[in-house]
Amino acid sequence: MKALLVDNSGDNPVMVIGEHPDPEPADKELLVKIEATALNRADLLQKTGKYPPPVGESPILGLEMAGVVESVGDGVTKFEKGDPVFGLLGGGGYAEYCTIHEDLAMPMPEAFSFEEAAAIPEVFLTAFQAVIWLAELDEGETILIHAGASGVGTAAIQLAELLRNARIAVTAGSDEKLELCRSLGARLLINYKRQNHSDIIEAELGKNSVNVIIDFVGSPYWHDNLKVMAMDSRLVYLAMLGGATVENMSIVPILRKRLTIKGSTLRNRNTAYKARLTKEFYSNTINLFKNVKLSPVIDSVYDWKDVEKAHSRMENNQNAGKIVLNGM
Amino acid sequence: MKALLVDNSGDNPVMVIGEHPDPEPADKELLVKIEATALNRADLLQKTGKYPPPVGESPILGLEMAGVVESVGDGVTKFEKGDPVFGLLGGGGYAEYCTIHEDLAMPMPEAFSFEEAAAIPEVFLTAFQAVIWLAELDEGETILIHAGASGVGTAAIQLAELLRNARIAVTAGSDEKLELCRSLGARLLINYKRQNHSDIIEAELGKNSVNVIIDFVGSPYWHDNLKVMAMDSRLVYLAMLGGATVENMSIVPILRKRLTIKGSTLRNRNTAYKARLTKEFYSNTINLFKNVKLSPVIDSVYDWKDVEKAHSRMENNQNAGKIVLNGM
Repeated sequence: MKALLVDNSGDNPVMVIGEHPDPEPADKELLVKIEATALNRADLLQKTGKYPPPVGESPILGLEMAGVVESVGDGVTKFEKGDPVFGLLGGGGYAEYCTIHEDLAMPMPEAFSFEEAAAIPEVFLTAFQAVIWLAELDEGETILIHAGASGVGTAAIQLAELLRNARIAVTAGSDEKLELCRSLGARLLINYKRQNHSDIIEAELGKNSVNVIIDFVGSPYWHDNLKVMAMDSRLVYLAMLGGATVENMSIVPILRKRLTIKGSTLRNRNTAYKARLTKEFYSNTINLFKNVKLSPVIDSVYDWKDVEKAHSRMENNQNAGKIVLNGM
Repeated sequence: MKALLVDNSGDNPVMVIGEHPDPEPADKELLVKIEATALNRADLLQKTGKYPPPVGESPILGLEMAGVVESVGDGVTKFEKGDPVFGLLGGGGYAEYCTIHEDLAMPMPEAFSFEEAAAIPEVFLTAFQAVIWLAELDEGETILIHAGASGVGTAAIQLAELLRNARIAVTAGSDEKLELCRSLGARLLINYKRQNHSDIIEAELGKNSVNVIIDFVGSPYWHDNLKVMAMDSRLVYLAMLGGATVENMSIVPILRKRLTIKGSTLRNRNTAYKARLTKEFYSNTINLFKNVKLSPVIDSVYDWKDVEKAHSRMENNQNAGKIVLNGM
């Protein structure tokens, strides 16, 4: 089959279409003809060798896909040839075909194109895991979502709004991105380039007013995060794009406000965990997706031949929502 | 009634027996003739004015007691006059009488004296909350309990051993204290005055080998704690007796090892929370207490007239286990 492979012959690694052995479905796996995949920041790291795929996963980039079942391995009971499916991959999305465990595949809602469905798994499952499972956002609580216009951010806003009727604050780096967040359900919009988020939150929502924070930024926001957190509130780290080291870190608010601080990534979880997450996510959201109350935010769609342009767009933080590849 | 009151007339506050209005049981409350109470570190702080009682609680010191029901308020269904009970108090244990919500009172097991029963609530409920509720210790996991010979430490060791069959490591400051921990079920004994706990744990149990840590020490142990924590492990802060400020704190292990870090105290929880905790603790442990498989570690018993000697013993870290007061 054809697949996007990393070419390291030049100064910088670039993706080129090449030949790769066809994947073969093991027991309980589907072989899927991929119609669309979507970019994740992990792809940029993996391309440069900084984020090797977990053991046993495809060396090909691509953590999600939508496509059509081509054939099924032994013991598959949930799908058959011809079914449109989408789901999370440990790798292998940048290719004509992939395999996926049937418990990680979800039936595609009719309302969606392949491009839309491919934009759902990674960001929505990550957001569902963070907001619902890890942070245990309760009905009507206040949530602060950093990088609100990112893929996971836009999914987190929608899930917080539609599943928990939450009061939603977001940070983003441009008024356009904040407007996107507002259109999805965010009510307090903070431009981190002009504003300090804890000042705005204390002024608008009060001191110690945030029940849940979803953070991708890391050390630059630590002190401001802990300042606005309420009693019994939860802070979930999904990345630390802005830095990892905090000085003058105090345990006092952790103890006094009974805080919970968690870190998590989705990719290195085992299949059983991902299957449980996929199942619970699907049952909680499928009707919202069918009615298009929930929908992926798509920034742009590129033919997979133009993957380098797509990667550049993400590298330069130009996207708001998901960047999709098709044409494989 | 008589009660121990704080006398601030000298250079340092001291406790003296004086007169205090009798408490009156509100709806769903018991009036209890106290036979024994026990010391907690919070008492030392409260005596000096540093830890004021929560709003609505008795200004008298004392967070736990055992005694006999003297009368019951309206709506009480679980107890009657003459029942021996023990339980957690928001305050008021250093007195002849106290009131307690019936959902916070537990029937005393026959195997125990009042002195033994009075030594149970605060440390065992705190340990149960930390080990079972907050850290969610699983069957057979490895737990590191700092200050293993403290009241909460000795309770945590027993609960980890008997409820979860855990592999238990402890730190303490003397060989006598470590021997006490060993007798309760601890298997890896670390003298923090001579040894660095992460070195010993890595050598004896391996790198990233600890699933749960219960910490009262705070900043001096932060880096060593995070070093030995396993994937998906949990760190619970119950105090920060050694300091609160951490330099060079890294978010990397929080994210990479998917850590959970929580802070908690029991005293400022509401009655509904304490009632749920009391109920679940009682149903999980009562048979173990009846068979004396679980038992409080009592350091010493003082007549309440000698409360200042008892306080000195705790202030100087001379106790291993609980210090009890009786004779009221």
